[in-house]
Amino acid sequence: MRVAILAHEQFPGRAKTAVGVLRYGTDDVVAVLDRERAGTAVGDHLDDIDAEIPVVASAADAPDFDALYIGIAPIGGGFDASWRPDVRTAIERGADVVSGLHYFLSDDQEFTSLADEYGVELRDVRQPPADLTVADGIARDLDAEIVLTVGTDCSTGKMTTTLELVEAAREAGLDAGFVPTGQTGIMIAGDGIPIDRTISDFTAGAAERLVATAAEDHDYLFVEGQGSILHPAYSPVTCGLLHGTQPDWLVLCHEAGRKRVHGYEDFAIPEPSAVADQYLSLAEPVAPTTLLGGALNTSHLDGGAAETAIDDYADELGVPVVDPVRQSAAPIVEQL
Amino acid sequence: MRVAILAHEQFPGRAKTAVGVLRYGTDDVVAVLDRERAGTAVGDHLDDIDAEIPVVASAADAPDFDALYIGIAPIGGGFDASWRPDVRTAIERGADVVSGLHYFLSDDQEFTSLADEYGVELRDVRQPPADLTVADGIARDLDAEIVLTVGTDCSTGKMTTTLELVEAAREAGLDAGFVPTGQTGIMIAGDGIPIDRTISDFTAGAAERLVATAAEDHDYLFVEGQGSILHPAYSPVTCGLLHGTQPDWLVLCHEAGRKRVHGYEDFAIPEPSAVADQYLSLAEPVAPTTLLGGALNTSHLDGGAAETAIDDYADELGVPVVDPVRQSAAPIVEQL
Repeated sequence: MRVAILAHEQFPGRAKTAVGVLRYGTDDVVAVLDRERAGTAVGDHLDDIDAEIPVVASAADAPDFDALYIGIAPIGGGFDASWRPDVRTAIERGADVVSGLHYFLSDDQEFTSLADEYGVELRDVRQPPADLTVADGIARDLDAEIVLTVGTDCSTGKMTTTLELVEAAREAGLDAGFVPTGQTGIMIAGDGIPIDRTISDFTAGAAERLVATAAEDHDYLFVEGQGSILHPAYSPVTCGLLHGTQPDWLVLCHEAGRKRVHGYEDFAIPEPSAVADQYLSLAEPVAPTTLLGGALNTSHLDGGAAETAIDDYADELGVPVVDPVRQSAAPIVEQL
Repeated sequence: MRVAILAHEQFPGRAKTAVGVLRYGTDDVVAVLDRERAGTAVGDHLDDIDAEIPVVASAADAPDFDALYIGIAPIGGGFDASWRPDVRTAIERGADVVSGLHYFLSDDQEFTSLADEYGVELRDVRQPPADLTVADGIARDLDAEIVLTVGTDCSTGKMTTTLELVEAAREAGLDAGFVPTGQTGIMIAGDGIPIDRTISDFTAGAAERLVATAAEDHDYLFVEGQGSILHPAYSPVTCGLLHGTQPDWLVLCHEAGRKRVHGYEDFAIPEPSAVADQYLSLAEPVAPTTLLGGALNTSHLDGGAAETAIDDYADELGVPVVDPVRQSAAPIVEQL
């Protein structure tokens, strides 16, 4: 599928979804829309991505595409009125529009009637399926080994770690599947359920359904984690993933040096090894699990400091540790 | 407010909401609707309730009332077609209709147009407010002592325990408020949020909003717990209550002799003291808490066996324990 990605005024630094789709997606990205950077190429901004993809000012300027992805998410998840002409143009050019915003395109009267007229689909990946149910508690019986990434906090690199684990597992010859649970992961993979938008009674059931479906196709499942079990606001999401997917293995994601909960600075993060124990102990009565490895986000450190931080984290956890952006995740996958 | 309660063919044994409203509600119950027991009185079935309240066959046979409560919840939460004439009659008699069913009366075209015509309200207590948000993590700063009931499993008596704690606290002269979090509690209290129906990202935020509101009116809050932190399906609901309300104190509810998770018999329940430790340890990094007491459901045991079970549970937990149905909850409240 040929994809154009809208990332106005935020590419690449604040366009997490756009960069994720470029870096890990299997779709053919034909253009990034950023009116502030029109005339440049993706390779001018991200050195690990195909240099040739053009950055253009609008959907009208993009080469032919089959779908427009909304690749940015402002705080609050609203739809910016300045993006309206691009969505309109995409529909009129016969392209589907895929969005991870809280604001649902399928609730927008102008877009729905235009989509009807041109026979295209508006897909709001943040809307969970309507038929979710409570978990049956059967994930441990599935015919697949399940690895869940968990974190000491939000925004510690769980999605990236999960994707890098999948890549390393495939390179090692394993039949590995990525199980997306958040909007960016879903846009990268093209399926999944936004766990943080499910009704709390059905959160574990939604997680269970994801692994049950993926286990039909793969021997090893790598589940994208969310939040943290010790987060004052998001812990229910994490708890549903832990008990719903019943993982055989955990990989603990941490940002080097982070001591306080992001956005909740009154709350201290315990030592990572204590957080790991908490996950293991909470999983135990439902489905005992084991720490497979650690992932350390060292993006704010220089090479030497990063190496020291990775060594320290490995000593603390007693399992292989990598920064999956700087290094291959192979040492973790080799434990399987 | 004068209330009639619909409980067709299920009063009192399978009419948990009806019995809860009769036993703990502050509304004036004028009739119970049960066509199989019409002509009897409530006192013929429940010896602790006013003997005079009539059981009638239909809403047409009830004395004047201001609201009809749906006091039963079939498995699946559907609306039984045989109740339709009663709801219709109630609306035509000018009464509001209050329901805790999954099936929303406010989505029923016949009822909504009839309610419009007669100027009455259809209130679906299982529908959470539309404006919930993420938790701010501020419950510990509220000007109230917060007690949360938690359980070793679902259906261990958390709602009853909470209501009995409120009663004992008021008898001890404390300014105590009940914080309802499930449909029966909400119908008893007339307000609250059904925590199990909230979006997982907002579950802790909903719990926080409940205690923040109640703290404006009371010095001691007793929060109705839900599920169990070790439940394969419902743990996200419990986790949101624990981290959202940041309780100063926990009361652990257990059913004597229960060893397996209700409805999930493959899963063993750890020893209650181990479950208590799990709650304390999960609360610790967000807001440290203390075990105040234990509540033991001994309804299936005779007097002597119940007494032994209560003593054993108290020895295990090391805190005061009562069966709040057989005994006063005062020994727990005295610890405050």
